[in-house]
Amino acid sequence: MSQNSKTAGDQVKAMEKIVSLAKRRGFVFQSSEIYGGLNGCWDYGPLGVEMLNNLKQQWWKSMTYRENVEGLDASILMHPRVWEASGHVENFTDPMVDCKQCKARYRIDVLFDDLSLKKKKDVLRELDAQKFGGQQKDETIIEEFAKLVTTDQDAARIVLMLPCPNCGNKGTFTEARKFNLMFKTFVGPVEDSSSVVFLRPETAQGIFVNFLNVQSASRQKLPFGIAQIGKAFRNEINTKNFLFRTREFEQMEMQFFVKPGTDVQQFEYWRGERMQWYIDLGMTEEKLQWHQHPKDKLAHYAKDAYDVEYLFPFGWGEIEGVHNRTDFDLSRHEQFSGKSMKYFDEETKEKFTPFVIETSAGASRSFMAFLVDSYREEEAPNAEGAMELRVVMKLHPKLSPIKAAIFPLVNRDGMPEFSRKLESDLRPYFRVFYDDSGAVGRRYRRQDEIGTPYCITIDSQTLQDQTVTVRDRDSMVQERIASTGLKEYLAKKLM
Amino acid sequence: MSQNSKTAGDQVKAMEKIVSLAKRRGFVFQSSEIYGGLNGCWDYGPLGVEMLNNLKQQWWKSMTYRENVEGLDASILMHPRVWEASGHVENFTDPMVDCKQCKARYRIDVLFDDLSLKKKKDVLRELDAQKFGGQQKDETIIEEFAKLVTTDQDAARIVLMLPCPNCGNKGTFTEARKFNLMFKTFVGPVEDSSSVVFLRPETAQGIFVNFLNVQSASRQKLPFGIAQIGKAFRNEINTKNFLFRTREFEQMEMQFFVKPGTDVQQFEYWRGERMQWYIDLGMTEEKLQWHQHPKDKLAHYAKDAYDVEYLFPFGWGEIEGVHNRTDFDLSRHEQFSGKSMKYFDEETKEKFTPFVIETSAGASRSFMAFLVDSYREEEAPNAEGAMELRVVMKLHPKLSPIKAAIFPLVNRDGMPEFSRKLESDLRPYFRVFYDDSGAVGRRYRRQDEIGTPYCITIDSQTLQDQTVTVRDRDSMVQERIASTGLKEYLAKKLM
Repeated sequence: MSQNSKTAGDQVKAMEKIVSLAKRRGFVFQSSEIYGGLNGCWDYGPLGVEMLNNLKQQWWKSMTYRENVEGLDASILMHPRVWEASGHVENFTDPMVDCKQCKARYRIDVLFDDLSLKKKKDVLRELDAQKFGGQQKDETIIEEFAKLVTTDQDAARIVLMLPCPNCGNKGTFTEARKFNLMFKTFVGPVEDSSSVVFLRPETAQGIFVNFLNVQSASRQKLPFGIAQIGKAFRNEINTKNFLFRTREFEQMEMQFFVKPGTDVQQFEYWRGERMQWYIDLGMTEEKLQWHQHPKDKLAHYAKDAYDVEYLFPFGWGEIEGVHNRTDFDLSRHEQFSGKSMKYFDEETKEKFTPFVIETSAGASRSFMAFLVDSYREEEAPNAEGAMELRVVMKLHPKLSPIKAAIFPLVNRDGMPEFSRKLESDLRPYFRVFYDDSGAVGRRYRRQDEIGTPYCITIDSQTLQDQTVTVRDRDSMVQERIASTGLKEYLAKKLM
Repeated sequence: MSQNSKTAGDQVKAMEKIVSLAKRRGFVFQSSEIYGGLNGCWDYGPLGVEMLNNLKQQWWKSMTYRENVEGLDASILMHPRVWEASGHVENFTDPMVDCKQCKARYRIDVLFDDLSLKKKKDVLRELDAQKFGGQQKDETIIEEFAKLVTTDQDAARIVLMLPCPNCGNKGTFTEARKFNLMFKTFVGPVEDSSSVVFLRPETAQGIFVNFLNVQSASRQKLPFGIAQIGKAFRNEINTKNFLFRTREFEQMEMQFFVKPGTDVQQFEYWRGERMQWYIDLGMTEEKLQWHQHPKDKLAHYAKDAYDVEYLFPFGWGEIEGVHNRTDFDLSRHEQFSGKSMKYFDEETKEKFTPFVIETSAGASRSFMAFLVDSYREEEAPNAEGAMELRVVMKLHPKLSPIKAAIFPLVNRDGMPEFSRKLESDLRPYFRVFYDDSGAVGRRYRRQDEIGTPYCITIDSQTLQDQTVTVRDRDSMVQERIASTGLKEYLAKKLM
């Protein structure tokens, strides 16, 4: 993850503002906050759950309201053999060391990460001298090094000479061992290896094991896809950056099954579809980029892989992966289950294992990206016409948690009754919010801050001609329309 | 769970038909089926996930599209102290015994359940003689006994004299110990008691710990509610009856916070609302009943409790609980967290702990109830006018996974083009299914079986006057309407 041009202080400040707004207005709370929180877990508050649901619904519609994509909702707990077949039992690991002296346990790259910059440089100089002949330069390889240290024996050896951060002793670390990132639990009353199951670390495998069930129930022919939204869990040692790296998170995945040979073309098609989805929902195009995985660093199942990256305040971060998974997963499940996972093409009478193009989006991560992307501080005229700072979330109206706010301007002449009637007429169709307290300028600001696209005022003219004003969040322009046409007006803008 | 009037054979057959249809048409698959399944876990297929989403959306709208109910989506993993405060660590247990000889472990009531009827009678006679003076009669107390044995020392003692089902030895069981039904896992790299967390066994606690966060972010005043849909997990030893008792399931819970003293009235209000919800969505009223928990068998937190029960083929079963939880949960969280959970009433300047009325519906269970309830086998005229059996799912159109099917009757004269155009016009708004294969009678039957409310045919008249026929699933009456009005026609019926 590279840095953008802002200073580190600015970046921290920008994230802090968003996290603080998210808590104060009810988008995101720390999980179990009254007990000091649970690291890497977050709760979505009243506005957060609406926005997250909107986001998931947009994805679901865009992916499954097609003739050739079916939905699925597989369970979180699966048969443990699934994760042997997928490679997760063997490969989904981080290298860990124990201190023989004090028994503390560390992930090996974290030992390095937690050093001061000066100490990091010492380590790098030593590694550089031994490994690269003194050619590499300090900070430029710090990040690379963090990866190197988990895969390279020489780098690991140097880290093992570091002092233990807990007891301060040197040379007390064990050899690095693999630590699996899957959460495990036990089904049934006995806790032993035969009863171990895992919380799924990805939703994809639920799709693969159901491939033929879905195909035969839906009578789909290749190419077709299976889409799923659901929670996944990873026992991350380093959780960080708010919703970016968490232990519990939600994915929106679609696996598209294709005939081998057509995979490259399908891969390009889905790359196009997926990038466009973010742009259509209003994400700033300049803050989106593709990151192609270098061929020598592809995951064990992948033939090609691109990440959609978003420019967060802390740098570029992956929000979706598009992968050509080949026939790896289906072949492995065939091998491990002893059940054929092959597709029979009725036209050509061929039997073969399909290739899979995966589009794997983070619901939690893209929620965060939309939150960050829509957050603006700008100068705007207040009720008296003077310029002042307004905080506004320029969310796409389809994502906004509240669609319209209703403001009766004065509390007389049957206005509250009229306003309440308007509210109850709209409420079955849209999330609306009624606010009759405080100056109207303040009411606008409160809605701007949470991204409400339309604010409706009921004023003295309303009682004469049954018109209301609708104020657009972004342009701040007010339009006067007949109150009887309000439902259709909003439906047209929002649906 | 009492029995209805059908014979046991009929009941098994009715359930088998529904489970088989659910698999064949893609409503519900066994989890990890290719690996032999994972007991107590199920996957929702293409039609199942649509129906489940429709059901959840109906609940969400009916509960949160109100001014005084807010939504929430709390994490599945929570701080372990939550479950000490809630009483789950101490009370959410089943009594288990180990065989000292062969180390097999059994839940004590299961030891009894698994006996043959003859053996059961022997045990009962012995217990009856010792405990009730020979007054009780065999089968009538078998079910009661299963409960008795988990709570009564004398009953437990008799069961412990039974032979071990695994090794056949008698008198080899240990004293009964409490076995907790929460799934546990470990966060971080070290697996010890300090890193244990639980998969939530209910969603309710996520609401309680967030009570003040939600209240302050939403500026709600008492009374108000917090609603949540989400997965929960219980390490059930006895999973049974398809989706009825599973290890992984989904809940739809709303906790309504009220001023003490108003709780009885609010309890009655929410009982009314909740029963009406099932009826409004078309569930057969005669198959719904209230079951009040006897005062001496109330859960530790409850002042009053009613279950909504549905008459499944295997008997009456709970699909929702409405509970007066008093101030138990908030008080306990205040005690265990050291944080005030009190509400400050700005009008009366009082500070107090609210009472809570809980409406806790099973999403998975009510999904199953709607599936069972809508399943019909009936005589209906086929295309030639002869009577034949049709299987039809009379789902409420709002719950139906597919809203409309499009059938071009013949494959000529631009009909496929016209039909495809109709399909793509409707697809952004409704789940539609295009079917041009086989006799039209067969196409109707395929849609009847999955509950599609409207089937649209494009015939030779269509190309002359642009009209289509819409056939109603239940009445089987066809109506001819202008194809240009189709979208509005369906919207009116479905929204």
